[in-house]
Amino acid sequence: GAILKISDDSQIDLGFRLQALYLASERDRNGDGDFEDYDDFKVRRARIRLGADITQWVSAFMQTEFAEDPGVGADARIIDAFIVLKPHKLAHLYLGENMAPVLRQNLTSSGALMAIDRPALAYKNLTWGTRAPLAFTNTNFTDFDAGLRGDVDVRDTGLTLFGSDSLSPELHFKYYLGVYDGVQESSRDSERYAGRVQFNFLEAEPGYYNSSTYLGTKKTLGIGLAFDLQDSVAREQGTGDNVDYAMYSFDLFCEHPLGPGSLSAEFGYVNLDLDDAGLLVDNGGGLLGVGRATGEQAQGEGFYLQAGYFIDNWQPWIDYEIWESDGPGDRGSFQLLRFGLSYFIKGHNANIKLGYEVAEADEDFAGTREDTLESFVTGLYVTY
Amino acid sequence: GAILKISDDSQIDLGFRLQALYLASERDRNGDGDFEDYDDFKVRRARIRLGADITQWVSAFMQTEFAEDPGVGADARIIDAFIVLKPHKLAHLYLGENMAPVLRQNLTSSGALMAIDRPALAYKNLTWGTRAPLAFTNTNFTDFDAGLRGDVDVRDTGLTLFGSDSLSPELHFKYYLGVYDGVQESSRDSERYAGRVQFNFLEAEPGYYNSSTYLGTKKTLGIGLAFDLQDSVAREQGTGDNVDYAMYSFDLFCEHPLGPGSLSAEFGYVNLDLDDAGLLVDNGGGLLGVGRATGEQAQGEGFYLQAGYFIDNWQPWIDYEIWESDGPGDRGSFQLLRFGLSYFIKGHNANIKLGYEVAEADEDFAGTREDTLESFVTGLYVTY
Amino acid sequence: GAILKISDDSQIDLGFRLQALYLASERDRNGDGDFEDYDDFKVRRARIRLGADITQWVSAFMQTEFAEDPGVGADARIIDAFIVLKPHKLAHLYLGENMAPVLRQNLTSSGALMAIDRPALAYKNLTWGTRAPLAFTNTNFTDFDAGLRGDVDVRDTGLTLFGSDSLSPELHFKYYLGVYDGVQESSRDSERYAGRVQFNFLEAEPGYYNSSTYLGTKKTLGIGLAFDLQDSVAREQGTGDNVDYAMYSFDLFCEHPLGPGSLSAEFGYVNLDLDDAGLLVDNGGGLLGVGRATGEQAQGEGFYLQAGYFIDNWQPWIDYEIWESDGPGDRGSFQLLRFGLSYFIKGHNANIKLGYEVAEADEDFAGTREDTLESFVTGLYVTY
Repeated sequence: GAILKISDDSQIDLGFRLQALYLASERDRNGDGDFEDYDDFKVRRARIRLGADITQWVSAFMQTEFAEDPGVGADARIIDAFIVLKPHKLAHLYLGENMAPVLRQNLTSSGALMAIDRPALAYKNLTWGTRAPLAFTNTNFTDFDAGLRGDVDVRDTGLTLFGSDSLSPELHFKYYLGVYDGVQESSRDSERYAGRVQFNFLEAEPGYYNSSTYLGTKKTLGIGLAFDLQDSVAREQGTGDNVDYAMYSFDLFCEHPLGPGSLSAEFGYVNLDLDDAGLLVDNGGGLLGVGRATGEQAQGEGFYLQAGYFIDNWQPWIDYEIWESDGPGDRGSFQLLRFGLSYFIKGHNANIKLGYEVAEADEDFAGTREDTLESFVTGLYVTY
Repeated sequence: GAILKISDDSQIDLGFRLQALYLASERDRNGDGDFEDYDDFKVRRARIRLGADITQWVSAFMQTEFAEDPGVGADARIIDAFIVLKPHKLAHLYLGENMAPVLRQNLTSSGALMAIDRPALAYKNLTWGTRAPLAFTNTNFTDFDAGLRGDVDVRDTGLTLFGSDSLSPELHFKYYLGVYDGVQESSRDSERYAGRVQFNFLEAEPGYYNSSTYLGTKKTLGIGLAFDLQDSVAREQGTGDNVDYAMYSFDLFCEHPLGPGSLSAEFGYVNLDLDDAGLLVDNGGGLLGVGRATGEQAQGEGFYLQAGYFIDNWQPWIDYEIWESDGPGDRGSFQLLRFGLSYFIKGHNANIKLGYEVAEADEDFAGTREDTLESFVTGLYVTY
Repeated sequence: GAILKISDDSQIDLGFRLQALYLASERDRNGDGDFEDYDDFKVRRARIRLGADITQWVSAFMQTEFAEDPGVGADARIIDAFIVLKPHKLAHLYLGENMAPVLRQNLTSSGALMAIDRPALAYKNLTWGTRAPLAFTNTNFTDFDAGLRGDVDVRDTGLTLFGSDSLSPELHFKYYLGVYDGVQESSRDSERYAGRVQFNFLEAEPGYYNSSTYLGTKKTLGIGLAFDLQDSVAREQGTGDNVDYAMYSFDLFCEHPLGPGSLSAEFGYVNLDLDDAGLLVDNGGGLLGVGRATGEQAQGEGFYLQAGYFIDNWQPWIDYEIWESDGPGDRGSFQLLRFGLSYFIKGHNANIKLGYEVAEADEDFAGTREDTLESFVTGLYVTY
């Protein structure tokens, strides 16, 4: 962004992110149980960002976002609003609305994604609603979604301790540990606890956020381990029992020169547990959304593997994911393949991406006779 | 706005627009069928604008807007969010939420309007909901409104090709051609196609947006032709048939010195077709708003003529409009006269305007015994 | 904020305010009539501010705010949007969405509060809904709240005349006089009229907004008197009569060196009248919220007294409030005590506050067997 001086130790950093795309996909518009083709122009992200240093060890960060919503234009939302105290490099304290640190994908900047958008199963994290949106994360299917939503979805409100350091010139680590409001739909107050540790060999990835590809500017191998726990996020219909949420994950990341270009590869394993619960309800007994999956059907385990090869400002890439639901039969399970090509006009600041995705559910999507969804997307991506 | 350098080929342009006014008008508040006087302070527009150049040929634009809405203050909305690729002056590509180019009034900056606000019948365009708000576009009457609304009203989401050039020192042209999501309330997916061509004699109006008065700084005569088409925007109640939208328009604009001052004059003809449809419903059969006009009553043709004379930072102006509905009897037809005076403290950057409007519907407004609405407005207008 | 030059006589001032906190309080979550403890992380305020000078005597101001709301992140709201004409220091004209000038606390910057947040009874003003939120203004109880809300809550839309001058080197005054839309829930249109005059001895407080503590940088004694009147804000259930709103207030403020530090003290008396009305309804007869207090129960009189002692960047402080409702029995009456400690990292630009509050209602809170609410808060506060 642009740096605006206020005084010797204080300044504002004003920036933006805009992602606009054309999506061709399928849905059952006329209710006959078969998919029809449709296309849609979308603003996927449109953000104004204000970062600020107030003193050398106090900073603040605010970021707006775009959300489709009837009325004049679209709705302006606020997805980041936090203050950071930085008394020591191993103890940065974040207070406010911020990203709870779990998956590597939680902590990968949306301005530096590789496969158009995050893997679908990254959205199984509580921050994004224990779901798995397809069509490059543009379409939510209730088959994979238990309906858990927080007060401030896509982020959480709480306190995070973050630190980053090097153990040797070629071994680096960072950790995150936090407590958040999480989801409060049960009969009792509870806290969400999330933690993550990441080690990097060769070069470090020292910031709060990672990239999914460094476009040949970094040599690193990263390993991450994470947990995310909250008791009593909602209640189970029927029994009225409070339902606990738990997620465990580990991930590997590598960026390294290979021949004339540079390889970026990432693997993530995700395990979600929702107490083998039935349909989830709120404290008053109301369903968390209509037609949602049971907790048992939304939970399960899976992994994604994505890789790209950067050469001369071009990057072909591929993403494969599989999710095995714990639900009866194969309901809630899917696999997904994406491949595509990016052209970097100016690195992550300006690029053009296109991709194709085919997602296969193990059972037909709810209310249809279809188990396969094909999508194509092309878009422009700018950020500064 | 203020220019904020990021690097050699990248910068942010931060700007704003604020329009606050006092409105005295009439409405039937107590439900007795007669109008009572009322007055109201309004924020008509309040915008923060972030334009950005990322490279010489990639730029981005975001703009927020103010919308009254219960709760803390007013709602912040996003009315522009698009990226522009500029490979050639005849091929600028706009992707995202942007103004679909149809009427000259669609493409006249709200920071450079003459008759307080746009003519009422400009809102017959799909972008603004096929309606005609009176009281200087502050009050919507269902008599003139078929209820069509898009996902992002006041703009649309899509792709626009725009180019501008000079054929000779005194003959210039620009064209716009675009495809948009439009309104998707029917049983099938469809695209909105809009196009416009404009020729200018003497001086050019080369940008995407025009002004309604150049305050004596330009000599030009402009002629514009436009179409706007989308099949299957909604369904007709009763038959369930899909309803098509079509608009055709041409317009003339002139700004030229005259005596000690400068004359600005503009004429626009607008023809709206909604398939002679009855009441419009969405794909599920729900009415598009309560008490709306039929398609046949909302459609029709009309024109506006506005003129002002700028002299010594003052500008008296006048606006006349007439709309002939295709509906049975004269329901949906109206004419409107505005006149007023503007004082330019600092051109379009800061000015004071006042105006009087009398609108006459051919039949009484729905639910009242009144066919005439009188309004007075005075306001402050700033932009940078 | 940061000053961004546009031209010789025009510039933008870009700033922000962020307040994030941890709250531990009580509520009856399981509906058994007893309070349970709970804790909550909150973003109390998150604002981006754009001030602008367009010419030497025309300026504009816009400010966004954060509001919790389901969906992507939180909702972005707009709480200030006004234009100022400044022909003379005794006649500054504010038009648009702005703070109606009544209580000293209406006109105390949220970036310079002392007792964590405003006194609860400051919210009895029409601008904030004739209520009294407890837990450091984080929790609204219907016991104290008649449910009156304007179109743009926390501010109002209208016209304010403001002027400030010195009568002698040690005697200063400022006045505010305005007309606003107020609350329009009755059968007739009416205006809200508010006025305030403030005198300061020793040093002046010349701006539109005051501080609740100047951290030892000012010596002043201020006295303020204010009224706030609007007829026909809503209707009374049963009779259907229109209900009038009236508030009268006076306040004292003092900041002066005392020993090695500086004392800040403030007293405010507030008298609210709602026509001794019963439950309030809108023009259509609908209740203004569920379970609200009658007008008679919400109205009454009270005062607050807060004081702090600033020494070496620390400030212990205390706040005491009492409100005597006019309702039958003691329903609607409460008293409240807060005390706490602030540490100023960089004055009002960056500080840490913590506070404890105990509020006692004269009767049990509606639907509970509890009459006492204890709350603890600690938070980070930054602004520039």
